Order: sequence, then structure tokens, then C-alpha cells
Amino acid sequence: MEVESSTAGAMQLLSPRNFPGVFDSVDAFLFDCDGVIWKGDTLIDGVSRTLDLLRSKGKKLVFVTNNSTKSRRQNAKKFHSLGISVSEDEIFSSSFAAAMYLKVNDFPQDKKVYVIGGEGIIEELQLAGYTGLGGPEDGKKTAEWTSNCLFEHDKSVGAVVVGLDPFINYYKLQYGTLCIRENPGCLFIATNRDAVGHMTDLQEWPGAGCMVAAICGSTQKEPIVVGKPSTFMMEFLLKKFQIDCSRMCMVGDRLDTDILFGQNAGCKTLLVLSGVTTLSALQDPTNNIQPDYYSNKVSDFLDLLEA
Amino acid sequence: MEVESSTAGAMQLLSPRNFPGVFDSVDAFLFDCDGVIWKGDTLIDGVSRTLDLLRSKGKKLVFVTNNSTKSRRQNAKKFHSLGISVSEDEIFSSSFAAAMYLKVNDFPQDKKVYVIGGEGIIEELQLAGYTGLGGPEDGKKTAEWTSNCLFEHDKSVGAVVVGLDPFINYYKLQYGTLCIRENPGCLFIATNRDAVGHMTDLQEWPGAGCMVAAICGSTQKEPIVVGKPSTFMMEFLLKKFQIDCSRMCMVGDRLDTDILFGQNAGCKTLLVLSGVTTLSALQDPTNNIQPDYYSNKVSDFLDLLEA
Repeated sequence: MEVESSTAGAMQLLSPRNFPGVFDSVDAFLFDCDGVIWKGDTLIDGVSRTLDLLRSKGKKLVFVTNNSTKSRRQNAKKFHSLGISVSEDEIFSSSFAAAMYLKVNDFPQDKKVYVIGGEGIIEELQLAGYTGLGGPEDGKKTAEWTSNCLFEHDKSVGAVVVGLDPFINYYKLQYGTLCIRENPGCLFIATNRDAVGHMTDLQEWPGAGCMVAAICGSTQKEPIVVGKPSTFMMEFLLKKFQIDCSRMCMVGDRLDTDILFGQNAGCKTLLVLSGVTTLSALQDPTNNIQPDYYSNKVSDFLDLLEA
Repeated sequence: MEVESSTAGAMQLLSPRNFPGVFDSVDAFLFDCDGVIWKGDTLIDGVSRTLDLLRSKGKKLVFVTNNSTKSRRQNAKKFHSLGISVSEDEIFSSSFAAAMYLKVNDFPQDKKVYVIGGEGIIEELQLAGYTGLGGPEDGKKTAEWTSNCLFEHDKSVGAVVVGLDPFINYYKLQYGTLCIRENPGCLFIATNRDAVGHMTDLQEWPGAGCMVAAICGSTQKEPIVVGKPSTFMMEFLLKKFQIDCSRMCMVGDRLDTDILFGQNAGCKTLLVLSGVTTLSALQDPTNNIQPDYYSNKVSDFLDLLEA
């Protein structure tokens, strides 16, 4: 006969009853940004006060974002523009993760990196000592199918990094495909595979998962994923903050990236319903990713702490 | 004890010994175009004479192409420009297949079809009585992530057709994604899923499989595929030519589309090495799609018939 546990596997709504226990057992809160801190360029209600309160209670704050269009510096600037003070060191973006993946794997400095994605990736590559090609620069280029046309690509490209690219075009798809198919040993790195994201506050738009899938389709290869739910970033995070994973809580709005990342890393997990996941999607019997806790939004912390 | 057959499962090089038997047992030759008839805009050596010879011997010729950028009319024009006489009725393109799929499934005439792909799809949709949106017209459009920006899409779109699109952009990806995700019951139809193709004679370029995968990535849905290796077109072909599939031979340069299509339909299959498949790829132990026969190019028929 199996002994039933009253909590194992059962996610709980965050409440005045369970919150003090959660709060005391966590030294660092890891926050996703899009759908948790902001939607598009609009701050989610109460976020600023919540973060201030957590800091005042001695909690470490870390921002783990799959948004690759910005570098850590550019992300910090966005926080500041919304009136929130964070340092670059507190930000772990998938653009940074892509550059760090190359670094820890001793990617040669004389090899180049072709980028399908935003300026953030190019900037993080540069900071890590690498030369990025493509990116926004190739956004206006066209590829013509004229007879005897040979599309030339740089044979010294040793990695293709694919992230969210609002200026995706056939030129970039052909460039990346050629590098992966023809340059021996060329890596195919995906910043992340989010299907969609709140690129504006009113609507979801195709995410990096769209561009990554396109390159999978043309190369018939699978990428190395460095953003969530991959725990690749966790080793940097641990080195920086020296906190045991079991005393971290990952707060996110997506089951298949944020919550899975937290679970993969052995953190506590909290899903907020302020982003892409609805309560009915969370409670749907076909959903097999269950957070430890869920709540409407991060500012629920304010009431829960006062309760 | 199993009795070994000398032929079952063993593909054969086309030779003067086996060719007469093949030739006599076939009433219709089904040809793929790209890599078989031409590469880019260059006719493959000896094709014209071979087709003339086959016609003179009373064989039916059919051209089954996954190229969706052209309609049947535009494909016939390309044949003519290369000095080969074919009628539109002999051409079965995946652009035509997409329109026919809607027709046989009673897709309502008052619903619209959003097209990620070329003029060929739009033209075939029109000929079938449908209204196509998007296509080349949306090639220059841009989608901006400005605050409060709501990307509007037509709620009467009931199907998204995705084919090869050299002018793929984020606008089209967002439009197609919104229709599939938000319009109830909206179909997601792929003309084909070829990873790459000889869009020019010197090089392979990303094929429809690239754009189709992108939409799979953003919608997390799988498409209905109407081109090869799906045998959807076969019922039209049979109605037109009234020839038993076992007396047809599919001639193609791709294992995963042409040869699989022929096998799925119960035809004889002949792989030619004038396109994307090399002899070593064909003979690789990991390849599990084996044609009945293989040869260098279709004009080998000339020598084999004279031998």
C-alpha cells in the first residue's frame, strides 16, 4: 500500500498560510522578466515595490531572461527606464548565455560567429572576445536566385547563434544554413526556443522558437539550447551568488521554460499568471509541468507579507 | 527457414540487363523536376531527347513537383522556355495540391486563405475560386513592436498555406501564426517540407521545410502536407490518367520526398543522382529509403534503350 503525501506533486496557490514558510526558506528569487516584471514596455503593477521589499528583507534578486535581443547592459537600461534599479550582474540573459557557452567550451577566438538575432547577442559576443557576423546588419540584405548565382559565406564561421529576430529574412536563413551544413564542426546554438512572447503589451508574437525551428527545418539538425529550460546558466549563477539551489525560487510565467528550468535546477518554482499561462492552461489535465506554487502576479507578495 | 529472394529489398543500378523489363512494365513515368529535369534554370543534359523518346514509345509523362512558387501555368511556361513541350495538365505542383486540398475538403468560398509563399499558390487558389491573402504582396511589410501596437489580422482567414518563400519576413510569420492560433478551426497546410532545394544551379538553398518549420515553431502545431511524400495528389493523377499505380514509375532525386512518395503510392521508383542525393548517401547504412532502381540521370534511358 502506498502512503499518500499531502503535498508531493500538488501545486499550491500562494496564500497567507503557506507564504511565510516559502519566504523564509528562500534566499534568492530568480525572476523571469517578460510576463513577470513587464509586458512589452509596460511595467506590471506593483513590481517595483515588491522588488524593493524583497531587497529590504535581505533577499538576493536575479533576473533570468530568455530575451536575447538585448545584452545585459541593454537589459539593465530597460529596467532603469522603467524606474527599477538593477545591476548588470543581476541579469542573466540568453544573449549572455550564448557567449558564455562558447567561452566555457573554448571556442577559438579566430573563428567567427554568425548571428540570426538581435544586437544583444552581437554585443555579448564582443564582450567575450568574439567576432559576430550578421545580426541586424543583415536585416536589409536580399538573396537572389539568379542563374549561376553562388551565395558566398565565410568559411571561418564556427558557430551559428539563433535567437529572436524581428528582421528575419531569407538571406540570413541561407547564410546560417550554409555555415551549419558546410563548415566542418560548425555549432548550432539556440538562445532559447520560446514559441511566442509578449513583444508588445497587447499581444503575443513569434519568439526565438520560430527562427530556431526554421534553421532546424533547413539543416535537419537540432540546436544546443543555452537559455531556459536548459540549466546551462545555473553554474554562473551559483558561482556568483553562492546560494544552494534548494534555497532559490524561480518565478516565471511559462511552464515549458521558467518552471521547467527551476525544476531542472532543483529550485522551488512559482508560476505567476500575469504572462502567457492562464489558470485553465495550468490546471488542464494534459499539462504535465506543475510548479510548486502559483499566484496571480509578483506583487501578491506585498499583501501576503503584510497578512 | 526463410527463403531468400534475389530481388526483394535490393535496389538495382539501371542496366541494359534490367532496363527492358522495367520499361515494358511501366505505362507512365512520373518525374520530379528540380534535380531531375533541371537545376535552377539549367536543363539537365539529355532531358529533352529522353522525354521525346519516351513519348514516341507511347509512355505517359507526368511532372510532380514540390515547387510551390509556380502555378501549373507558370511551370509549363518554364518547360517551354527550356525548349520542352508539356501541357499544364501534365503538371502536378504542390501549389495546385494546396488549392485542391481545400476544394475536396469543401473549404468555404467565403473564407480566405493566408499565404506564406509565392505567386504560384495565390494563382492556383484563384483558379479554384478562393481568395488568397499575403504572398508576395506582404514581402515588403514590416511589423513594429511599438507600445500599444496591436497587429490586426483578418478573422475570416480559415486556412494558412505555407510554401517556399524567398521573401519570408516577421510580418508574414506573425500574420500566419495569429490566424492559426486565434481563428477557430484555421487549417495549417504545408505545400511540402523539403529542407533544401536547387533554387540555383550551383547551390542548395533553404526549401519550404524551413518556412513550414518556422510556423510549427511559433504555433506548436503540425501541418497537413499536400506535396510529396504525401500521396494526396495521387487521386487526381489516377483520375486523369487511369493507369494503375503499379504501372507507374516515380523518377526523382530525393529519397524523403520523391522515392517515399512513389513507395507510398505503390509505384516503381527510380532515384537519379543528378540532384541532391549522392551515391554515398544512397548507399549509407543509415539510409532506410531504398528505391527499386537508381541511375545517374534520366538521359541514361537513351543509351539503355539503344543497348
